[in-house]
Amino acid sequence: NDSGDMNSSNTKCSDRTEFNLVQVNGTWTRHAAQCQDKEGKLSDAKIYENKSDQGVSWTVVSPVVFTYRVIQCKDLLDPRNDTLLRGHTEDQELKGTTSNSEPVKRFVVIDKTVHELYGSKVSQYFDAKGVIYKILPLPTTEENKNMELVTKILEEVHHFGIDRRSEPIIALGGGVCLDVVGLAASLYRRRTPYVRVPTTLLSYIDASVGAKTGVNFGGGKNKLGSYVPPVATFLDSSFFQTLPLRQISNGLAEMLKMALMKHRGLFELLEVNGRKMLHAKLQPSETCGGSAQEDVAAASMRIATETMLEELAPNLWEDDLDRLVDFGHIISPELEMTTQRVLPALLHGEAVSIDMSFMVYVAHEKGLLTTQEKSRIIQCMLGMELPVWHQECSLVLVQKSFRERLRHSAGSLRMPLPTGLGRAEIFHDMIEDDVIYQAFQKWTEELSTFA
Amino acid sequence: NDSGDMNSSNTKCSDRTEFNLVQVNGTWTRHAAQCQDKEGKLSDAKIYENKSDQGVSWTVVSPVVFTYRVIQCKDLLDPRNDTLLRGHTEDQELKGTTSNSEPVKRFVVIDKTVHELYGSKVSQYFDAKGVIYKILPLPTTEENKNMELVTKILEEVHHFGIDRRSEPIIALGGGVCLDVVGLAASLYRRRTPYVRVPTTLLSYIDASVGAKTGVNFGGGKNKLGSYVPPVATFLDSSFFQTLPLRQISNGLAEMLKMALMKHRGLFELLEVNGRKMLHAKLQPSETCGGSAQEDVAAASMRIATETMLEELAPNLWEDDLDRLVDFGHIISPELEMTTQRVLPALLHGEAVSIDMSFMVYVAHEKGLLTTQEKSRIIQCMLGMELPVWHQECSLVLVQKSFRERLRHSAGSLRMPLPTGLGRAEIFHDMIEDDVIYQAFQKWTEELSTFA
Ligand SMILES: NC(=O)c1ccc[n+]([C@@H]2O[C@H](COP(=O)([O-])OP(=O)(O)OC[C@H]3O[C@@H](n4cnc5c(N)ncnc54)[C@H](O)[C@@H]3O)[C@@H](O)[C@H]2O)c1
Ligand SMILES: NC(=O)c1ccc[n+]([C@@H]2O[C@H](COP(=O)([O-])OP(=O)(O)OC[C@H]3O[C@@H](n4cnc5c(N)ncnc54)[C@H](O)[C@@H]3O)[C@@H](O)[C@H]2O)c1
Ligand SMILES: [Zn+2]
Ligand SMILES: [Zn+2]
Repeated sequence: NDSGDMNSSNTKCSDRTEFNLVQVNGTWTRHAAQCQDKEGKLSDAKIYENKSDQGVSWTVVSPVVFTYRVIQCKDLLDPRNDTLLRGHTEDQELKGTTSNSEPVKRFVVIDKTVHELYGSKVSQYFDAKGVIYKILPLPTTEENKNMELVTKILEEVHHFGIDRRSEPIIALGGGVCLDVVGLAASLYRRRTPYVRVPTTLLSYIDASVGAKTGVNFGGGKNKLGSYVPPVATFLDSSFFQTLPLRQISNGLAEMLKMALMKHRGLFELLEVNGRKMLHAKLQPSETCGGSAQEDVAAASMRIATETMLEELAPNLWEDDLDRLVDFGHIISPELEMTTQRVLPALLHGEAVSIDMSFMVYVAHEKGLLTTQEKSRIIQCMLGMELPVWHQECSLVLVQKSFRERLRHSAGSLRMPLPTGLGRAEIFHDMIEDDVIYQAFQKWTEELSTFA
Repeated sequence: NDSGDMNSSNTKCSDRTEFNLVQVNGTWTRHAAQCQDKEGKLSDAKIYENKSDQGVSWTVVSPVVFTYRVIQCKDLLDPRNDTLLRGHTEDQELKGTTSNSEPVKRFVVIDKTVHELYGSKVSQYFDAKGVIYKILPLPTTEENKNMELVTKILEEVHHFGIDRRSEPIIALGGGVCLDVVGLAASLYRRRTPYVRVPTTLLSYIDASVGAKTGVNFGGGKNKLGSYVPPVATFLDSSFFQTLPLRQISNGLAEMLKMALMKHRGLFELLEVNGRKMLHAKLQPSETCGGSAQEDVAAASMRIATETMLEELAPNLWEDDLDRLVDFGHIISPELEMTTQRVLPALLHGEAVSIDMSFMVYVAHEKGLLTTQEKSRIIQCMLGMELPVWHQECSLVLVQKSFRERLRHSAGSLRMPLPTGLGRAEIFHDMIEDDVIYQAFQKWTEELSTFA
């Protein structure tokens, strides 16, 4: 293409100047990066200036630092425990004293079912603490996960009135509740601190650890949202006692994902103890109940959180498209959507499990996993009562999902695949058609009986 | 307060471990910060781990880098100019070739009035470029600046279909349009790139340069929003030709703000040439039309943008509450809201001007400005046909505004005040009542005749 006079706003070899930013007495000033004799506070941000005959252009490069805490705790709703009220701040003063002039306020959004089970304990907690609070129970189901629910929360928060900086909104519930409240909080006054208290295993492992918020829109899952982490997440596994077993299996799928991608030790824990942990709903096992020794459930949850944090912390806004945590999430979105129409619908973790099961066959077909490794993984899934095959997961659906992945990943497939137990790599080239075909045949042959 | 066993989720002197994050082969792993022998890609993020008898707690500190370009240009809507289509990318390949397999798509949201004036030129531009486009004209007025308008944009974008990474949404209009589109884009798929093309002087100087998006909610201005910068802003001052003079004055107020806070040279430019620039609508002056020499209008706009970038780039998410750019924005929010009820309503820049005028009297009363400096500033405002006093700006309203400021600034007033021409400081203590009272009396005495 021929570039005329007007064609380039920045000329090719233009004089580009790099500036640092230095603050003295409240005023920021830029200084050419080569001159070193600056006094004052130096920012991590930079400004690059380009001059051309069109005028000046600037490029701003500005890092914004997000800080958040993920805190395991016991007896979160026990009034003797300060965590729910003050665990989000490291400030010992704020933590210690309640003798401030203004009374403490908290706005709490809670899943309706969770409210039926724990609502009175929550009220008792804040009553005991002398807090002015408002509890808003909402039907935070997947069908209601939309902007209207966000608006509802915003209206109530606005009406109640909170201090934007010191009074976090508290979300208590499963992933839907945490996602919806997170979005509302991230919008209110361009961000208001919020706290996540996951009450399902899935949201404990996954939704709690990162920065993502979201609602469904226009028929698409989580099509609207933001990346604003909570100030703190409080992890209390005792909430799982009231979960149906199917919801436990559902969460174990995301735990298995982390095991397969990066932690052989966690895989072995799940392989040996998966079924037992499922039926004990990950509560402390009685044998080591009294001892200080970490039991298998606690160890599994800790490792799952640690490995998840490792992958999410360096990539909070998902700028890097190479993501191990996408494993199990290539076919599952399509599959989840399809099965919403043909009841019984799959839960998220169940769809993830089916996706992972198929990918294990792909990895085996590519020679990345031995036959023994492949069947150990499938056995582990079955032990945790997770589905490993599904009628609706057709070859056509699989191929469509791969194409979609390619379309949204900036020209490269970026497919995470296990290369052993607890090891993985990201594959950039499209998987060959016949590998997919062969894997699909074997997968169906060997596993369709488990449907 | 007595701290029992359960009172602290993090024990006081606990063993805190600092971890770096290192990526090898697609997998992130944490490494204790003291061990230096790491190979692979080191992240800027950190994880701190604390162990206590309650369990483990982690603190994540993760910098997210925002990059955006602010580009001055001429003839933005001339099809020979590539900027509007490709100026947001530095990628020379993407820029040069249009020979990709898929056709280029662009979604454009445009202020209704701007559409009447420039709509056909915009269509012609994209027609000439062979782009598949959709132009959505919207009545982006202050009254319509709400979530419904955001939802309307989202529905249309979703229906049109764009590539989340490579096809930015383009916003063409004043500050309302840019703010609303920015919020929609920041929500769509948790962020979709967008481009800002300001067509008013106010939005050219202010809304274009930072990261803020927003809509009004529950009777409050910009109560909902986000901090997601555009990929690029294209600054073309020729749009001002069709602006009413009042809108030019309006924008000059924000320019004066930057001059007073940090640039004596800009102040002197405005002092000498303000009235002339206003009536020439900041178009290139004929005398130096042909020469390569920068004229006064161009210089003023460049300096205003530079100084604004200096203040915004290091504080993109407004984590630091000490902000010079808040000058003129202490009383004006209250004043703007009050005058919405008693027509004729004040424009934003007009309210800012009245606020600044009063603060100049406060600064004078505190001995920060000489009488001569004070009157030079007021003269400069009058020269640019800006209001310097208003009936509705009562002592009661002023005092209420100061109290509000104190309440929202974490215990300290953080009031920027001029300490000379083009110099300022941030004052942390509450201004004494009698200083406010005296300033108010003199201000009314000397300036009420200009109302
Ligand atoms: N933000 C993220 O990073 C992220 C990660 C994973 C999943 N998600 C989202 O999370 C959602 C799925 O989360 P989920 O599986 O927790 O679903 P969910 O929020 O729908 O909860 C599942 C069910 O369990 C009930 N429930 C919750 N806690 C209970 C308890 N303690 N006892 C009894 N019943 C209880 C709920 O009422 C609900 O019926 C999806 O919308 C998904 O998009 C988000
Ligand atoms: N995001 C930020 O950092 C930021 C900064 C400052 C202001 N703002 C917001 O910007 C808004 C004010 O912006 P504004 O002053 O541009 O108001 P505006 O968007 O309402 O535009 C003012 C008027 O000018 C018309 N107009 C626009 N361009 C024109 C042109 N070239 N020719 C003729 N008419 C034209 C518009 O139709 C409108 O009637 C406020 O809502 C404010 O909150 C945001
Ligand atoms: Zn998932
Ligand atoms: Zn302003």
